[in-house]
Amino acid sequence: MIIVMRAGAAKREKEEVLDRIKELGYKPHVIHGTTRDVIGAVGDEREKRVVIDAIASMQGVESVVPILKPYKLASKEVKREKSEIRITDSLSIGGSRVIVMAGPCAIESEKQIIETAIAVKEAGAHLLRGGAYKPRTSPYSFQGMKEKGLKLLAKARKASGLPLVTEVVNPESADIVAEYADILQIGTRNAQNFELLKKVGRLKKPVLLKRGMSMTINELLMSAEYIMSEGNHSVILCERGIRTFETATRNTLDLSAIPVLKGETHLPVIADPSHATGNQKYVAAMSFAAIAAGADGLMIEVHPDPEHATSDGPQSLTPKDFSALMKKLRLFTDAAGREL
Amino acid sequence: MIIVMRAGAAKREKEEVLDRIKELGYKPHVIHGTTRDVIGAVGDEREKRVVIDAIASMQGVESVVPILKPYKLASKEVKREKSEIRITDSLSIGGSRVIVMAGPCAIESEKQIIETAIAVKEAGAHLLRGGAYKPRTSPYSFQGMKEKGLKLLAKARKASGLPLVTEVVNPESADIVAEYADILQIGTRNAQNFELLKKVGRLKKPVLLKRGMSMTINELLMSAEYIMSEGNHSVILCERGIRTFETATRNTLDLSAIPVLKGETHLPVIADPSHATGNQKYVAAMSFAAIAAGADGLMIEVHPDPEHATSDGPQSLTPKDFSALMKKLRLFTDAAGREL
Amino acid sequence: MIIVMRAGAAKREKEEVLDRIKELGYKPHVIHGTTRDVIGAVGDEREKRVVIDAIASMQGVESVVPILKPYKLASKEVKREKSEIRITDSLSIGGSRVIVMAGPCAIESEKQIIETAIAVKEAGAHLLRGGAYKPRTSPYSFQGMKEKGLKLLAKARKASGLPLVTEVVNPESADIVAEYADILQIGTRNAQNFELLKKVGRLKKPVLLKRGMSMTINELLMSAEYIMSEGNHSVILCERGIRTFETATRNTLDLSAIPVLKGETHLPVIADPSHATGNQKYVAAMSFAAIAAGADGLMIEVHPDPEHATSDGPQSLTPKDFSALMKKLRLFTDAAGREL
Amino acid sequence: MIIVMRAGAAKREKEEVLDRIKELGYKPHVIHGTTRDVIGAVGDEREKRVVIDAIASMQGVESVVPILKPYKLASKEVKREKSEIRITDSLSIGGSRVIVMAGPCAIESEKQIIETAIAVKEAGAHLLRGGAYKPRTSPYSFQGMKEKGLKLLAKARKASGLPLVTEVVNPESADIVAEYADILQIGTRNAQNFELLKKVGRLKKPVLLKRGMSMTINELLMSAEYIMSEGNHSVILCERGIRTFETATRNTLDLSAIPVLKGETHLPVIADPSHATGNQKYVAAMSFAAIAAGADGLMIEVHPDPEHATSDGPQSLTPKDFSALMKKLRLFTDAAGREL
Repeated sequence: MIIVMRAGAAKREKEEVLDRIKELGYKPHVIHGTTRDVIGAVGDEREKRVVIDAIASMQGVESVVPILKPYKLASKEVKREKSEIRITDSLSIGGSRVIVMAGPCAIESEKQIIETAIAVKEAGAHLLRGGAYKPRTSPYSFQGMKEKGLKLLAKARKASGLPLVTEVVNPESADIVAEYADILQIGTRNAQNFELLKKVGRLKKPVLLKRGMSMTINELLMSAEYIMSEGNHSVILCERGIRTFETATRNTLDLSAIPVLKGETHLPVIADPSHATGNQKYVAAMSFAAIAAGADGLMIEVHPDPEHATSDGPQSLTPKDFSALMKKLRLFTDAAGREL
Repeated sequence: MIIVMRAGAAKREKEEVLDRIKELGYKPHVIHGTTRDVIGAVGDEREKRVVIDAIASMQGVESVVPILKPYKLASKEVKREKSEIRITDSLSIGGSRVIVMAGPCAIESEKQIIETAIAVKEAGAHLLRGGAYKPRTSPYSFQGMKEKGLKLLAKARKASGLPLVTEVVNPESADIVAEYADILQIGTRNAQNFELLKKVGRLKKPVLLKRGMSMTINELLMSAEYIMSEGNHSVILCERGIRTFETATRNTLDLSAIPVLKGETHLPVIADPSHATGNQKYVAAMSFAAIAAGADGLMIEVHPDPEHATSDGPQSLTPKDFSALMKKLRLFTDAAGREL
Repeated sequence: MIIVMRAGAAKREKEEVLDRIKELGYKPHVIHGTTRDVIGAVGDEREKRVVIDAIASMQGVESVVPILKPYKLASKEVKREKSEIRITDSLSIGGSRVIVMAGPCAIESEKQIIETAIAVKEAGAHLLRGGAYKPRTSPYSFQGMKEKGLKLLAKARKASGLPLVTEVVNPESADIVAEYADILQIGTRNAQNFELLKKVGRLKKPVLLKRGMSMTINELLMSAEYIMSEGNHSVILCERGIRTFETATRNTLDLSAIPVLKGETHLPVIADPSHATGNQKYVAAMSFAAIAAGADGLMIEVHPDPEHATSDGPQSLTPKDFSALMKKLRLFTDAAGREL
Repeated sequence: MIIVMRAGAAKREKEEVLDRIKELGYKPHVIHGTTRDVIGAVGDEREKRVVIDAIASMQGVESVVPILKPYKLASKEVKREKSEIRITDSLSIGGSRVIVMAGPCAIESEKQIIETAIAVKEAGAHLLRGGAYKPRTSPYSFQGMKEKGLKLLAKARKASGLPLVTEVVNPESADIVAEYADILQIGTRNAQNFELLKKVGRLKKPVLLKRGMSMTINELLMSAEYIMSEGNHSVILCERGIRTFETATRNTLDLSAIPVLKGETHLPVIADPSHATGNQKYVAAMSFAAIAAGADGLMIEVHPDPEHATSDGPQSLTPKDFSALMKKLRLFTDAAGREL
């Protein structure tokens, strides 16, 4: 880490910083600048973040600049080759194939979920998505069918052959969800629910980790690190839009996060254009753009009857629109040198 | 709700919207505009938010504008007079007295928490804050002393006479925290952890709900509504800074949220200048400003030795600085016509 | 416009609003709701925005919701077919061909600009970009070669055959820039410099209007409207990143703005991945993504020697990298059904 | 500046960086870290920002961290004592007196501006504000009375005795505005209109520089530096709200900018709660908060008839409300140990 001293810091202040650095096990290097001194402290500050705060609190210190990235297991410095996360015997994410997860926001009925499963399968989707436990902004909104919904999902898997991705909202119900799901999804509002991250880190199922609405890329990788540090290295990251001042779309899909993440981590990265834009009119364009930016997959909302959906109707595609999107998507996966 | 039709929407599309509105139990009023039609739908859309989404998904509809606020129990329309939340026999929040909660970010040792408790009590604080369960961005950071920390908190309460506010991070450990705490704190990263909100809504302790880093004021009130709709109406709101592009402070303390909230809700509102600014240099100025803006209280980090704190040292005041702040604060509570 | 009255607004207050609406030439429609009244006012509020503010200031009014979009000339409601902006006899923007503008951030020397012009021409670029007048955050940074730079640009046009796009920073120097440039660029910091917009609106050259760093899509269209309302309808919009909390990239490229703009306006839309990301590592991925999202063109920084550039070196591609990007770009323009 | 090399950077890459640093006149210090090397370069990088970009563009370099603040004349390192800006013989800003500027957003008529001037004077305001040149988002909105408005302002000054602050929107009309105004205001949309900043830097009148809507505090000081580097050191900074995701207020008043600025610069800082909140209901609370946070003054919109204002009616106070605000404000200036 680099410690920038204040211009005019007292000699005694500098000495105390040097003593503290040595006491903490670092080797200090003083650089005498034109207006202030800078102290380099050599050592691995990653596991002792508190050190940075402690030194920043000292008299005469203006700021402390960390040099190492705070994540390890998620970083390319620790594992250079891309991770390919195995979902089933025949399906993995992070390889050359682009993976599409499609389905309704919420499971509403047996008919709805099975019809959708078959329709998205026919259109070429690789996984079925659908929420049984729904985190909703309002307590008066539909909160999901819960375990009954999981059972319907299982039926839809049987009917369509598609593996399942569904959300976990609570450490308590994580085990039951894990019995049914092929991928456990952590939603945007729980992306820093560390108790939940630790819980899924102890389960043996791949985890789809959505970026929090106001989370930096760095923090997303720290949340992945939480899961990985508990032993579960099967983490798939998902860019789903960040909160900005723009209101024309529900959130702002940050597609540059894809190449940035590709440079920092070996984990696969997918995009969710449905939640990001909140409007089915923009889903196709942003799906193509995500693939062109290097995404390993997509998560897309499809509902047989968006006008009667219990949640997120405006952003859901009909099966017909989804099928048209998949056809055009192939042109872009080809351009990107990947299969669909 | 108001439904804005697209310019040039087909007659059939308008009729379908009208039919749908009636089917949902609303009374439609059509206004023929110069370029497009607008339909007013009279009825209480609050408990059926899905209706808005459903209609927004219909052909020929450009947008749907809700008229009613989505919260009820938290709103001033339902309860006009200010709520005064009773903490102990002699202490309540939301009355004419400004309440100050002070203490360390994390409990680190018996000595640390008891010393701090006595010092902040002497300086005039009304509650002791201190985290036993710590949500930290990094899995490698200190995660709190957990139940052992709660026991130390209880000792500090005994030693100082100050009631306690401490964080709940998980529905599973909420009951044990509630055994010790006088106020249950929901942290910024859990402000939309709806399972946790429902859990504390079923407990009989006042809840301090911190605004999420990227939460609108509307969403904060919806999270309060979650707690209240489970039966617990003792909710105190806390503005603690929102995430913006500015990096000179850790977050941007949104003090205008205070008069906005005062106009919308009967619940008390406090501010946390320590987490908002992330820098002890700015805590006093923002404490005074929060009171001038109308806050009912403050939450301030105090640590006997910030340079050796296990978390958030740079934003912690020493007991001496805190004591000086409290003296000056009295001038501002006087100006605001309140006691301290 | 729709006027939402406060719950419990007095009868007199409602009557005054109705009188005011009629006085302003609108036809009012009252809808009696369950908790409050809503008044629809029929008429074209677009040219009298002040009306909305005036009514919002009245007693008993909670909010006013405008129905019409505030722009006209830029809107698809006024002109449905896509505009194709003619640059030279053989080049236009907004048709089926994707147009690439490439070159250095700033013109530094005759050698630099001519070499770059020839190199980007060979790689397939359609226009040469290069700044003679440079708006820089610091007064101590290089401010551009000014008219001398324009003359070098003209030489580079002659040497390469590429038309020129260059920035205008001031109404005073706009005429001289217009003598040399084929397209006048309005930079992000001047996107709401209305005096400058009016000035280029009176010139006879196409204008490339960059989105301001914190401008909504709506405001971008209003700035286009400023230019168009002065008579110049040859406006090309450019998404170049918005300011958000994320710091991994210099700005956040808002690619969903492209399909949103395509739905609202007939004007062409291009993207600038160099300024948006601020890092040459991410330029190729975001170029491909912009085309997949539907952009009509790209603006890319190329410098023969980024390490010695006077500005924006870290985001500049070498001619070799640019050439590789163009080759791969063709795969994506093909996928999008467009020529390059 | 500190140069962080990539983990595994080649020896040759390091040598090239060292050579470049020396060539640029800096003295390099290499610190060999556990995973990567860090190079400290001693010298004044402030006037050669391009150096940082150039080195960041080199092979093997991961990032470059500047150590010095990019501003000089505005910084406390160059001038430690607070600047008191002289407006007239009897009025200055930045001393112990809190200064209030009040008046309408736009000048509309002789009657309006003179009545307002007299009313705000009676209530205790120190300056009259009023716009003759109005930068408006829509070309169809009222653009101000221009020179005719300036003449009316002058009459209002004569009638009330209050000095004038009014906006400059264009280098061309700056001289004429300077003939009438006592303070030249640079609006939020022109805060990085560098040509305009340089122009007012060459005039002999104090400048009120508003923070741009998406400007960092650092950038605001760089814009002040533009004005100061041309010779005009009479700059007053104004916090007027930044653009965030929150929509309950028009912008988010960033009051922590006040103590941050007070720590960085000797220039006075005032706040504009009217434009920040966009709602007269919140102006008083935010005025008190700004003073408590340490502001040297306020700019407040007052209109004799907000319902008939040509702009910004919803945020304007009536003279009666303003007078009530001023009375209460005195309690807070007293608490802050200042006069009003």
